[in-house]
Amino acid sequence: MGNRFNQSGEPQSWRERAYEVIFEADTPAGKLFDVVLLIAILLSVVVVMFESVDSFRRKHGELLLKAEWLFTILFTIEYVMRILCARRPLRYIFSFYGIVDLLAIVPTYLTIVPVFTGVPSTQRLAVIRALRLLRAFRIFKLAHMLSEAKALKQAIWAARAKIAVFLSTVLIAIVLVGSAMHLIEGDRTDENGNSIATGFDSIPESMYWAVVTMTTVGYGDVSPTTAIGKTLAACMMMLGYCMIIVPTGIVSAELAQPTRKAITTQVCPECMAEGHDKDAIHCKFCGGKL
Amino acid sequence: MGNRFNQSGEPQSWRERAYEVIFEADTPAGKLFDVVLLIAILLSVVVVMFESVDSFRRKHGELLLKAEWLFTILFTIEYVMRILCARRPLRYIFSFYGIVDLLAIVPTYLTIVPVFTGVPSTQRLAVIRALRLLRAFRIFKLAHMLSEAKALKQAIWAARAKIAVFLSTVLIAIVLVGSAMHLIEGDRTDENGNSIATGFDSIPESMYWAVVTMTTVGYGDVSPTTAIGKTLAACMMMLGYCMIIVPTGIVSAELAQPTRKAITTQVCPECMAEGHDKDAIHCKFCGGKL
Amino acid sequence: MGNRFNQSGEPQSWRERAYEVIFEADTPAGKLFDVVLLIAILLSVVVVMFESVDSFRRKHGELLLKAEWLFTILFTIEYVMRILCARRPLRYIFSFYGIVDLLAIVPTYLTIVPVFTGVPSTQRLAVIRALRLLRAFRIFKLAHMLSEAKALKQAIWAARAKIAVFLSTVLIAIVLVGSAMHLIEGDRTDENGNSIATGFDSIPESMYWAVVTMTTVGYGDVSPTTAIGKTLAACMMMLGYCMIIVPTGIVSAELAQPTRKAITTQVCPECMAEGHDKDAIHCKFCGGKL
Amino acid sequence: MGNRFNQSGEPQSWRERAYEVIFEADTPAGKLFDVVLLIAILLSVVVVMFESVDSFRRKHGELLLKAEWLFTILFTIEYVMRILCARRPLRYIFSFYGIVDLLAIVPTYLTIVPVFTGVPSTQRLAVIRALRLLRAFRIFKLAHMLSEAKALKQAIWAARAKIAVFLSTVLIAIVLVGSAMHLIEGDRTDENGNSIATGFDSIPESMYWAVVTMTTVGYGDVSPTTAIGKTLAACMMMLGYCMIIVPTGIVSAELAQPTRKAITTQVCPECMAEGHDKDAIHCKFCGGKL
Repeated sequence: MGNRFNQSGEPQSWRERAYEVIFEADTPAGKLFDVVLLIAILLSVVVVMFESVDSFRRKHGELLLKAEWLFTILFTIEYVMRILCARRPLRYIFSFYGIVDLLAIVPTYLTIVPVFTGVPSTQRLAVIRALRLLRAFRIFKLAHMLSEAKALKQAIWAARAKIAVFLSTVLIAIVLVGSAMHLIEGDRTDENGNSIATGFDSIPESMYWAVVTMTTVGYGDVSPTTAIGKTLAACMMMLGYCMIIVPTGIVSAELAQPTRKAITTQVCPECMAEGHDKDAIHCKFCGGKL
Repeated sequence: MGNRFNQSGEPQSWRERAYEVIFEADTPAGKLFDVVLLIAILLSVVVVMFESVDSFRRKHGELLLKAEWLFTILFTIEYVMRILCARRPLRYIFSFYGIVDLLAIVPTYLTIVPVFTGVPSTQRLAVIRALRLLRAFRIFKLAHMLSEAKALKQAIWAARAKIAVFLSTVLIAIVLVGSAMHLIEGDRTDENGNSIATGFDSIPESMYWAVVTMTTVGYGDVSPTTAIGKTLAACMMMLGYCMIIVPTGIVSAELAQPTRKAITTQVCPECMAEGHDKDAIHCKFCGGKL
Repeated sequence: MGNRFNQSGEPQSWRERAYEVIFEADTPAGKLFDVVLLIAILLSVVVVMFESVDSFRRKHGELLLKAEWLFTILFTIEYVMRILCARRPLRYIFSFYGIVDLLAIVPTYLTIVPVFTGVPSTQRLAVIRALRLLRAFRIFKLAHMLSEAKALKQAIWAARAKIAVFLSTVLIAIVLVGSAMHLIEGDRTDENGNSIATGFDSIPESMYWAVVTMTTVGYGDVSPTTAIGKTLAACMMMLGYCMIIVPTGIVSAELAQPTRKAITTQVCPECMAEGHDKDAIHCKFCGGKL
Repeated sequence: MGNRFNQSGEPQSWRERAYEVIFEADTPAGKLFDVVLLIAILLSVVVVMFESVDSFRRKHGELLLKAEWLFTILFTIEYVMRILCARRPLRYIFSFYGIVDLLAIVPTYLTIVPVFTGVPSTQRLAVIRALRLLRAFRIFKLAHMLSEAKALKQAIWAARAKIAVFLSTVLIAIVLVGSAMHLIEGDRTDENGNSIATGFDSIPESMYWAVVTMTTVGYGDVSPTTAIGKTLAACMMMLGYCMIIVPTGIVSAELAQPTRKAITTQVCPECMAEGHDKDAIHCKFCGGKL
């Protein structure tokens, strides 16, 4: 489809040509477009990142603002083009990527809306910055370019039931251990009988600790102090450490599966040989028809 | 068995119908019951969790209390129904789920027993709250619904001897390294010769550190300070980091097993040899027909 | 060999009977002896552990001392019996278990040697306690009882070259990253120009940090503070996190190997069928001699 | 080639003999040279490491300096010899090992260059020390000696696309979660309304936290304090904990591959079909002889 004629033999309209460049990646122009877009997205993410650093914003604030608007306008043009040349514009707009494309340009425009500009409270501005960052989602398009992502997704999808069992078991363990630790470590009082914050003051807080511990992250902002608490924590760590085995094993086994060539149980009617591939038409030993 | 007649052709009694709904999940009513029960259990766990948050209890204490009693009464009715319609009531009562079902409702009733209500010490109340949380165990019934849990259990069960060897080796390593660290780091004194608490003051405490380190949790509440201690700790971390390989590998291999070449338990009628492939026609040792 | 006659048909001497009980585990008496010994070792380890807890030693010091001596005398009798009834006493004495058996009883006797008793410095006593703990090594005999340990050892042994490459790469990475971090984070000065201890004050200290980080332990007693240091640390964490793949994959592949039935490339001379097991004598399809 | 004659039958020149010793490892002299070199490199790395420890440098500074110069001169001689006897000297000089060999000796010579010696600022000296440490790179030659490293490299190389997808997904997750945490935890003020440093003060800082958390390192120098922040952190830990599955599974599957059914690159001369097993005699599609 790289030539200037469409499938019906007629010359391509500008919309058909634009569609090929923007949505497809199998023509040289399409490839170039995707690579340029990717670089632009990466740069715009870096700009947002630097804008969040106080010392940087004070020095190069204007430059960052200009870059921000440049990228926003570029992405706006791209977004409009996508709607114009898409075969089913509505379907694109409400697709995952369509929504992400929109959310990637909205935040910058929001900063000039009076409601948001008028109130200079840092907190509100922070929210706007948050929306801005959704632009990073665009990079997900990267995955599109690599067919390998599919094999991974399939392996995880095939193991979804096993993973669900695993995760629910882990969550129950976290609720139970978190509650137990809350009861063991929760009520500590100082010399005057006043209760001290231990980080195990409620079940949700204890569950946070349980997650931090079971995933072997272990910040140390909350850690047990009593002998029983330490013993329970040690048991839980051993459990958490060993538990990683299960999902690892599951996906390993799943990934090893598809690469194993399918062998039929068909026997060659002439030489009786077995072990033929599923796609075989002739016996690979005697050449007889299967 | 979804119709209103039992296996003997007679109309089902209410007990038989209730049994189907409560204990089985293959009729629409049974499925609905299980799903509703699951949601109720989840909600009741959330109620207990919120009740443990001080600020929440102060504001919505009464609401939480009412919800708590609502769920307790519902679960009590369910428990009584289970006993009434079970074919072998005693067997249900002393089964794992029977005991869990009972423990899930007892704590709430305990709060109105004078002995526990009269004494307003926080510690005692805490114990009652602990019993309450056992309700979370009910969720284990979830696993029932997923047949996948079985494959996992089998893989772990098949590897139980290997896992036992692994765990006992790890425990011995923890005792030995914990003791060594106690000797290296345990005796520290300040400028006046008074001993300082280092977190390595006894072997059990050092073992707690060893578990925290070997499982790569690493809170940092206890960490070595001497050069020798740090060196030993570094070696131990490397060991702990590599050790995860072993159980991972074991279960991976175990899970990959069933997909491999199936071997029958068939015995050759002529030479009594075993270990034939499922596709074998003749004995591979004597050539006799299988 | 469970009867009272030896292989030559003569009645067994007491030494032969004692040998069976102490060294072998296939007679009921031998099994009982091993189990009792195991429990005694576990209890003696627990005694040593409790003795290291200050508050416990003050209360039950005498009881612990008596238990300590009881176990020491029991193990001494066992050690003497082993030497007396071993077929090659010298070989036993200098075997791994012989040395461990001796080291397990020596420390307690050392406490009554004047040189050690006379000097009541805590440090010296600590050293004696250290030797005492070697008794825990005895538990390693456990592994003996489980034939599964062998499969694990073989898998690790088969992958030893790969593991060596992996470990040396990790060590080089630790030396390099440790040095780099020492240069980046090492020289920090306070407002008066005095250097501050950062935990990166020398290459060995930085390497300790690198190990703590790369193994994902992450105590937090030492952590980077500069932007460059944090960036390098982040890269290193990603590397360390991914690196666990390599040894895991190696041993997984190795463990999966032996269970895969060996298939020869031999072709049946009569039916030309392939895929015969290595131990096959006849073709499994036509029954012809291979 | 171990004898004193070269391939043309003529007696070997000293350059040819030196080449064999220095560059090859299959003659006894070559092997000895490699082992001695390895020990020298290890020792010189240890010397650099000890030199960085302040207390050590003060005591044994002179000894370390002498050792440093001894190794530098030895390595210089080795480097010159390599250039002299290499068949293509320029190719060696600009090869990876050639550059590393040069960088390993340069730093020591730099310390006597007036520009660097004259300025006794610790910072500058630190830079020189940094260059010195590149010597450690030499140890990479170790990997050369082990053919096993190749199998590992191949497995990782074969899985490169999958690993790239995985890593880019992780990076996007880190950017997104880091930004979200910056917005949630970034703006904290004390009682007087002044903003407090939380460790989430900019997106790059939050991303550092995200890496520390997702890789399960968890220093604890930065940790969330708000309820929403802790919830998000807990979710992220679960994700990070499970994510290790994916690369582990990929490389496991890749490493297990080579032991599976080998497929030739042979093309059927009649029907041009590909994908035949190594043991195939006839084309499995058209039956034609391969």
